[in-house]
Amino acid sequence: MSSNDRVIIFDTTLRDGEQSPGASMTGEEKLRIAKALERLRVDVIEAGFAIASPGDFAAVKAIADAIKDSTVCSLSRALDADIDRAAEALAGANSGRIHTFIATSPIHMQYKLRMQPDQVVEQAVHAVKRARNLCSDVEFSCEDAGRSEIDFLCRIIEAAIDAGARTINIPDTVGYAIPHQYADMIRQLLERVPNADKAVFSVHCHNDLGLAVANSLAAVVAGARQVECTINGLGERAGNAALEEIVMAIKTRADLLGVHTRIDTPHILSTSRMVSGITGFPVQPNKAIVGANAFAHESGIHQDGVLKHRETYEIMSAESVGWNANKMVMGKHSGRAAFRSRLEELGIVLAGEGELNAAFARFKDLADKKHEIFDEDLQALVSDSLSAEAPEHFKLLSLEVASKTGEVPQAQIVVSVAGQERRATAQGSGPVDATFKAIESIASSQASLQLYSVNAITEGTDSQGEVTVRLEKAGRIVNGNGADTDILVASAKAYINALNLMQAGHKAHPQVADV
Amino acid sequence: MSSNDRVIIFDTTLRDGEQSPGASMTGEEKLRIAKALERLRVDVIEAGFAIASPGDFAAVKAIADAIKDSTVCSLSRALDADIDRAAEALAGANSGRIHTFIATSPIHMQYKLRMQPDQVVEQAVHAVKRARNLCSDVEFSCEDAGRSEIDFLCRIIEAAIDAGARTINIPDTVGYAIPHQYADMIRQLLERVPNADKAVFSVHCHNDLGLAVANSLAAVVAGARQVECTINGLGERAGNAALEEIVMAIKTRADLLGVHTRIDTPHILSTSRMVSGITGFPVQPNKAIVGANAFAHESGIHQDGVLKHRETYEIMSAESVGWNANKMVMGKHSGRAAFRSRLEELGIVLAGEGELNAAFARFKDLADKKHEIFDEDLQALVSDSLSAEAPEHFKLLSLEVASKTGEVPQAQIVVSVAGQERRATAQGSGPVDATFKAIESIASSQASLQLYSVNAITEGTDSQGEVTVRLEKAGRIVNGNGADTDILVASAKAYINALNLMQAGHKAHPQVADV
Repeated sequence: MSSNDRVIIFDTTLRDGEQSPGASMTGEEKLRIAKALERLRVDVIEAGFAIASPGDFAAVKAIADAIKDSTVCSLSRALDADIDRAAEALAGANSGRIHTFIATSPIHMQYKLRMQPDQVVEQAVHAVKRARNLCSDVEFSCEDAGRSEIDFLCRIIEAAIDAGARTINIPDTVGYAIPHQYADMIRQLLERVPNADKAVFSVHCHNDLGLAVANSLAAVVAGARQVECTINGLGERAGNAALEEIVMAIKTRADLLGVHTRIDTPHILSTSRMVSGITGFPVQPNKAIVGANAFAHESGIHQDGVLKHRETYEIMSAESVGWNANKMVMGKHSGRAAFRSRLEELGIVLAGEGELNAAFARFKDLADKKHEIFDEDLQALVSDSLSAEAPEHFKLLSLEVASKTGEVPQAQIVVSVAGQERRATAQGSGPVDATFKAIESIASSQASLQLYSVNAITEGTDSQGEVTVRLEKAGRIVNGNGADTDILVASAKAYINALNLMQAGHKAHPQVADV
Repeated sequence: MSSNDRVIIFDTTLRDGEQSPGASMTGEEKLRIAKALERLRVDVIEAGFAIASPGDFAAVKAIADAIKDSTVCSLSRALDADIDRAAEALAGANSGRIHTFIATSPIHMQYKLRMQPDQVVEQAVHAVKRARNLCSDVEFSCEDAGRSEIDFLCRIIEAAIDAGARTINIPDTVGYAIPHQYADMIRQLLERVPNADKAVFSVHCHNDLGLAVANSLAAVVAGARQVECTINGLGERAGNAALEEIVMAIKTRADLLGVHTRIDTPHILSTSRMVSGITGFPVQPNKAIVGANAFAHESGIHQDGVLKHRETYEIMSAESVGWNANKMVMGKHSGRAAFRSRLEELGIVLAGEGELNAAFARFKDLADKKHEIFDEDLQALVSDSLSAEAPEHFKLLSLEVASKTGEVPQAQIVVSVAGQERRATAQGSGPVDATFKAIESIASSQASLQLYSVNAITEGTDSQGEVTVRLEKAGRIVNGNGADTDILVASAKAYINALNLMQAGHKAHPQVADV
C-alpha cells in the first residue's frame, strides 16, 4: 500500500491540538472545525480521546455522526476500556478508525509504563485485535518511536500488523528528530518489517526544534504515506507539523517529492482563521502560508522584479490557499438571504432557524455601528452568537466606563446571574481592570487571569475588537472570547464567556497522550 | 575553512527582518537590538543596507561604532556607490564586513537585471575587488541561487573567491528548496568549485514552505559553515530561518550534526522578546523555543511521565534558552540602584543619566498603579521612555473617555502639537475608535489604520497593555507602540507615536534586497 503516490492527511487539531495549554474547545466548536476539515478534504479527522471525559466522548460521537466525507478517528490507550469507549463513540460514523498506542522507547517503558518489552508487545497485540473486532480500520502508534530501539520497533510493528493494524504510526513524540536520520528510520522499518506492505506507514512529528514539517516530508520521501498534522501547527509545546505547510510543500514541490494529497487548498486560509479564532491562539504574521505577511511583499514598494515578472518571487499563488478570495463586503442593506448564503460560502453551518435569526439580529446591530462587514466580522459574529446560545449563568446587561488621565478609572456593570440582575462598581489600574474587578465583585470566581489579548478583526478604526481572556482556576484553564466594536464591551463579554465556561464545568484537559 | 566544526551565526534581523512589512525600526531600536545580539554572541550582525537611506546609513554606522564583540556587516548591491557607502558606514567597526550580491538565476538575470550571464560574472568580480580594497572581510551572495544553474553558480563563485570573497552565500531567496535537494546543491558546489576551500560557504533560507530551518541544517551537514538567520524568524513574507531554532537544533543534536556555535543560549528568550516588542510582531504560543507554550506541558495536569522522570518528555531545558530566569519582581519600594542594575541584567543600556532618570520616574508612576513590576514591564517602560525621548511633534496631554452600552462612545483629548495645546472631542463605534478619531480631528494625517493589537505584558488584571498601531499612508508604513495600565491611554500613545514617526519622516523601507 505504500507504493502509491497519494499521501493521506490525518488532522489531529481536535485531539493533539486541543492538548495545547489554553486551546480547549467546546463540543460545538469542535464540530464546527470538523466540518471545516471535511470541506478541506482532510482524509482522517482525529476528533478526540473518547474515554478522557464525557465531553470528549460526546464531541467524538457528534463528529462521527455528522461527518460523511472524512474518516473520523478516536484515540485510545492500549486498554480494553479505552478501545470499547472509542468504538462506542464511533458507532455512527460513515467511516471510523480506532487509533491505539503504547510507548516503545526504553525510557518510557521503564519510567512511565513500568513494563517489560515482552509485556508491551503482548498488550499492543491484544489492543489491536480487540479494536479490529469493533472497527475495520485500526491504527497503531509506537509512542516515542523516535527514541525507541529499531529492533524492538520492527518486532512490535510486525506483531501489530499481524494483529490487524492497517496504519502504523511512528511519532517523534518529543520533537527530537533530524530529517535525514528520521527518514533513515522510516526506510529501515519499511525494509525490515516483513509485512510492511500490508500497512500504511504514518508519521506524527512535534516541532520542538522547528523541524516537524521537514521531518514529515523526509519520511514521505522514504515511503511514509500518512502525515499527522494540525491546522496552524497547533499542538502540545511547540506544536505539531502544520497541515498547511505539509500540503503546500507537497503541492509546490511535486516535481521533487512525486506525491499528492486530496486537500482542497483554497479552503486553507478560512480553516486557519477559524481555528485561530476559536482557540484564541494568534497566527504570527511571518507564519508560512497563513500568516498575514506570508504573501505580502515589502510595504508600498512593489518590488521591481514582481512587477516585471510575477514568477521571479512567487512560488505559489496567494489565491491557491484562499487569500484574496473573500472580497465580498456586506453592509446594513444586506438581507437575510444574502447573509445566509455568505455564511454557507464561509462553511459556517448554523443548527437551525433560531441560530440563524440570532446571528442575523447581531449582524444588523453590527451594521449600524460599522460601515463595511467583512468575512472575518461574520465569523466573529457567529462565534459570538453561538457562545450566547450556550446556557449562560452570567450575562452582560450593561457596562459604563469612565476613564480620564490622572484619575482612577471606574466601571459600573450590570450582570444577570442565573436570571437575577446584579450591579457593581469598581476601580482599577485601567478601564479593563476596573471592568474585570466589577465583574469579579459579583462573580467571586477566584480565577486568575493568565492571558488577555485583543486583535482588530479587520482594518480601519471602526473594526471590531476580538478579545481573548484566559482564566485559570485550580489547574483548569478556559478561554473566553468576545467581539464588539467597543473594546471594553468585548473585554467584558470575553471575561463573562470564560466565567460561563468555568461554571458549565467545561472540562479540564483530558489525560495527555503524547503520541 | 569549511572543515572545522564551528557554525558561524550571521543574524540579519536588522536587515532582512526589518524588510517585513510593518517591521521597520528606528535607529535607536536597531542599536538596542544590536547590543542584545552582541550579548547573545552572534558572530556577524547584518546591521542594514547603508545606501538605502540616510537613516539606514546612520544606523549601520552607529552599530559599527558601538559593537565590539561581533562583526558588523552592511549589505550592498554589486554597484560602486553601494560598496563605497557600506565601507563608509563601517569605518569605525572593530570588525566590519561588506556583503555584496547579484542575481544568478536565469529568471532574475533576464527579467530583473536584464543582463547576460557574462556581464553578471564581470560585475560580481568587479564588486568583490572594490569591496576588498575597502574592507578585508567580504561576503558575496548569489541572489536566487536556489533557482540558478549549477554550472553558472560554480563559475561565478570561483571568480568571486579569486577576487577576494571570504564568504560565499547561497540563498534560497524564494523559499522553494527541499532539504535533501538543497544539501545536494551545497555538496556539489563544495566539490566542484576548485577554490572552495578558500571561503566559508553560507546559507540563507526563506520559510515560505516552512522549511527554512531544515534547509539550513541540511546544508550544514553538507558542509556549509555559516547560517544566516533572524530572531523569531522575522523576515520578508514567511520570514527567514529562526536563529533560536537553528542554534538549539545544533546544540541539542550535536550527536548527529557534529557542529557547534558560540551563542550564549540563555539570552535567547530576552532577545526574542525585545525584537517582538520593538517590531510589534507577536510570537505565536506554539512557536518552537520562544513561544509561550514551547516548554509548557498540559494545563494543570503534570503528566505522569514528566513527574516520574523529567527526561521522558524534555529534550532540552527551558532554562537553557532563558525561561524561568527572570523571576525577580520589583515594586514601589525598589530604589534607583536596583532599577539600574536590573536594567543592566536585562541588557538594556540607557544613553545617560537623563534617560535613566526619565525611565525611573516612569517606573515609580507605574509602581503606584501596579503591584508587581516584572521584567517585561521594565522592557515596555524603557521602550516607552525612549520613544518619548525622540523629538515629538504630537504629545498626549490628557484623555477622557466615556463609554456606556447603548450609547455612542465619546472621547475628549488634549494633544500638544509642536508645543501648542489643542483639544478635540469625537464619537466612534467604540472608545478606541472615538479616541483615534479625536486625535485625527487634530492631526488630519489621512493615514489608514492597518493593524491594531493589544497584548497584556504580564499576567493579572493590573497588567500593562502594550498596544501596537500600524498606520499606512501613500505606501509608507509605521508601527507605533504605547504601554499603559489603561488600554485607552496605551492606544492613544501608540497612535500618537505612529504619527510622530510619520511626521519625523521615519523612512519608508529601503529598496528590497531579496538575498
